[in-house]
Amino acid sequence: MIILGIDPGIAIVGYGVIEFSNQRFKTIAYGAITTKPDVKTFRRYEIIYDELEKLIKMFNPDDIAIEEIFFNTNQKTIIQVAQARGVILLCATHNKLNISEYTPLQVKQSVVGYGRADKKQVIYMVKDMLNLKTELKLDDTADALAIAICHAHTGTSVLKKYYNIK
Amino acid sequence: MIILGIDPGIAIVGYGVIEFSNQRFKTIAYGAITTKPDVKTFRRYEIIYDELEKLIKMFNPDDIAIEEIFFNTNQKTIIQVAQARGVILLCATHNKLNISEYTPLQVKQSVVGYGRADKKQVIYMVKDMLNLKTELKLDDTADALAIAICHAHTGTSVLKKYYNIK
Repeated sequence: MIILGIDPGIAIVGYGVIEFSNQRFKTIAYGAITTKPDVKTFRRYEIIYDELEKLIKMFNPDDIAIEEIFFNTNQKTIIQVAQARGVILLCATHNKLNISEYTPLQVKQSVVGYGRADKKQVIYMVKDMLNLKTELKLDDTADALAIAICHAHTGTSVLKKYYNIK
Repeated sequence: MIILGIDPGIAIVGYGVIEFSNQRFKTIAYGAITTKPDVKTFRRYEIIYDELEKLIKMFNPDDIAIEEIFFNTNQKTIIQVAQARGVILLCATHNKLNISEYTPLQVKQSVVGYGRADKKQVIYMVKDMLNLKTELKLDDTADALAIAICHAHTGTSVLKKYYNIK
């Protein structure tokens, strides 16, 4: 099955597309949707929606996994990021994807085995698990791939259906 | 010109549609889009988008005016409300509306003449200014009408164009 992992944001929306079959990962694509601060906020949301929809149509994922955000995240941008996250959820719903949400703790626990792992540890493990040779320049991209890996590990109803697990 | 005022929320999205011409108000419609807490969050956003789009197609507003939300709003629901607000902004953008945003302070200042006015004062003034005979059951609906009035008073570029004001 193909999983699209998303690290939500307004300036940078990290994404990672992986295939998970026979307990093995294959990396299909990763990168970021970016919007510039000098663009009007509501136009930035439209860009995020449109670019995400392009990715969905391009890679045809079965599931989308999105990191949850919390009130104690960066206070300056939390409203804008939450608004962007609403747009991302809507785009996923409009495109009939199965949506799963994970906390940063769940993602780190799943990828590093330790909920308080730092960014470097997450990047290291993501590169190792996906056997990536190139550098992951953006934390957001590594996070998005980590969220996709977390979803594969966690096993949603769709995954269970694939593997006939009860 | 026709103005659609929106008080954003997740369980209740208040709306008010007014016509403002020759310095006079005419009330066209008001009410609320509601979603139930037992419905999945992302489905609630889809309902809000769809219902808002229906209102836009029904009343064909020139402008949409949306209340801003702040970090110190109700902490329990702020993320969900901000996500819903992102969906509302996207719907307005997809439907080519002019979007204006106002703080609660601006709205109260515009309608009551006092930025710290309480809810009862806002309801009283909205009823009076729009000459409404029926009760406004929901605060959110009164707020939405107040936001539309605030927008008419404030005068955006479109209003200025209508009245040829520099």
